[in-house]
Amino acid sequence: MPIHPIWDNFPEIKEDLVGCYALMEKKVRIRNKDIQEAIFDLLNGGGKLLRPAYFILFSRFGNLQKQDHKKLLYAASSVEMLHIATLVHDDIIDDSPTRRGTQSIQSKFGKDIAVYTGDFLFTVYFDLLAHATDSTAAVKLNAFAMKRILLGELDQMHQRYNMDITLRQYLRSISGKTAQLFSLSCFEGAKWGFCSPSVIISSRHIGHHIGIAYQMLDDILDYTQNSETLAKPVLEDVKQGVYSLPLILAMRGHKEAFEPLLRKGKDMTPEDTQQVVHLIEKYHGTSKAQQLAQRYTDKALNGIQALPDRPEKKILYRLTEELLYRNF
Amino acid sequence: MPIHPIWDNFPEIKEDLVGCYALMEKKVRIRNKDIQEAIFDLLNGGGKLLRPAYFILFSRFGNLQKQDHKKLLYAASSVEMLHIATLVHDDIIDDSPTRRGTQSIQSKFGKDIAVYTGDFLFTVYFDLLAHATDSTAAVKLNAFAMKRILLGELDQMHQRYNMDITLRQYLRSISGKTAQLFSLSCFEGAKWGFCSPSVIISSRHIGHHIGIAYQMLDDILDYTQNSETLAKPVLEDVKQGVYSLPLILAMRGHKEAFEPLLRKGKDMTPEDTQQVVHLIEKYHGTSKAQQLAQRYTDKALNGIQALPDRPEKKILYRLTEELLYRNF
Repeated sequence: MPIHPIWDNFPEIKEDLVGCYALMEKKVRIRNKDIQEAIFDLLNGGGKLLRPAYFILFSRFGNLQKQDHKKLLYAASSVEMLHIATLVHDDIIDDSPTRRGTQSIQSKFGKDIAVYTGDFLFTVYFDLLAHATDSTAAVKLNAFAMKRILLGELDQMHQRYNMDITLRQYLRSISGKTAQLFSLSCFEGAKWGFCSPSVIISSRHIGHHIGIAYQMLDDILDYTQNSETLAKPVLEDVKQGVYSLPLILAMRGHKEAFEPLLRKGKDMTPEDTQQVVHLIEKYHGTSKAQQLAQRYTDKALNGIQALPDRPEKKILYRLTEELLYRNF
Repeated sequence: MPIHPIWDNFPEIKEDLVGCYALMEKKVRIRNKDIQEAIFDLLNGGGKLLRPAYFILFSRFGNLQKQDHKKLLYAASSVEMLHIATLVHDDIIDDSPTRRGTQSIQSKFGKDIAVYTGDFLFTVYFDLLAHATDSTAAVKLNAFAMKRILLGELDQMHQRYNMDITLRQYLRSISGKTAQLFSLSCFEGAKWGFCSPSVIISSRHIGHHIGIAYQMLDDILDYTQNSETLAKPVLEDVKQGVYSLPLILAMRGHKEAFEPLLRKGKDMTPEDTQQVVHLIEKYHGTSKAQQLAQRYTDKALNGIQALPDRPEKKILYRLTEELLYRNF
């Protein structure tokens, strides 16, 4: 069973996630067995299915009688598929050797195949979506969301090696590249689950806040954890010119300390990156980042607290708490 | 006016193509002005809008009273947008310095930005499509078509440097990567234009035959024309291991003559590629390829000839004839 062990603690939604997994696995079957195998690895490689989980949890706040369970699973799978497709293309950009503890598609087959494999997964995404709803209104919404995700990535790329990057620019970029999809997942779950208008509105904000906090924590972990725990190379971002939250906050008023190191770009040695980590600690970059992330976590948890009382509310709260105080 | 001069000879559809162009231009506006500029260059760079033209022509065989002209233009634009998106990603794979006579996005901004720019154009494609129809049936069809296009590309990649590539494998690959989209364009034009069932069925076949002949001619031109006329580098394909129709046909029974040259792969000198051209002529690769392309051209033209008599029939015939006996 490829479902991540975290879901053993959430038996109420595990079965639906198994259903999502089965749908995705069915849809990615292609003639080229090498590539299919690589996609299966990606599906099986410990992806947490967080976005479908949020979709499903929000849908449970709605009118269960009106719901078409099969269609909801298609929709929940579609957000994960969009996520996976963007991962494949992100790995091209980051030149990442591994993904989810296994070799990335671009490193295994080269950039060329990774481009088309990601594109192929985008078609699976739209196909899943088209099975989830009869109306193209959802397609417009999803095309818009996907566009914002990409513009977030392009923004981040545009800011590479920019030592004057502001908190505002960082927030704009992660709003697109990460929060957008969490927000979409919660919103679609609420909307297609026939929730009340007020829950639908809240779902979007809660998802946004979860996504922002999640990305901030991810960026903090890059500086505080080692590569075994996270199964991805740490501190690559700095060399690649991607300056994230702890660094941005530490550089405020101390840019001159970082400048000689960062200016080396791709030529930074392991000692240089260690020195950057040291400077970030010295100027409290990590703790400041943690404080800011906490504000978004609080917003998310308060938003959940204000939802109508349903059994899922506790689950949603607990999941979000575990996620945002996470080691997983 | 960025519309290609060929349409001056087809005033009956030029106006609709201008409409498509305007829709596309509106939809590709983004915050990042550099990338927007590059996309505009691509839109303006002499693209022939052939696929929307076929869409529009087929729609005119239908029930004009029932048609929603605005929606038809959205749909016609969507097929061109899919085409452009795939071009951007193809240029990454081919490492192509130019596209449509201007610098390709990957060569101007690097592979990374080209990946996301192509992805962005896929979102525009689905957005245009969602504006063309209220039903997600069309989205399923398009996701399927896009998948076949990508699988065609992946197939071609899989066959790289394979000197034993068969005609059948070549046909399968171009059916996906080129004919699929022509077929989709004709079919959607017929279907959404409320044509009779028999026209709808024919449209798909005619489009397929046009696409196959078109790609074969393209591959023939690679060996017979120089780079000024076609505004793209010639004979790059052979070095990259893409063995197309004239070479495949010339190699039949003469593989040993080509082997020492082709085995050099990326290290082929200009003299080596000239030698390959010479061998292809010697073994009648080009003329055999022309004969085969002619068979598909005939099938397409016969299919058009059998369509109901409408003023558009003559236009469709003339356009296809000019295209498939083309210098443009």
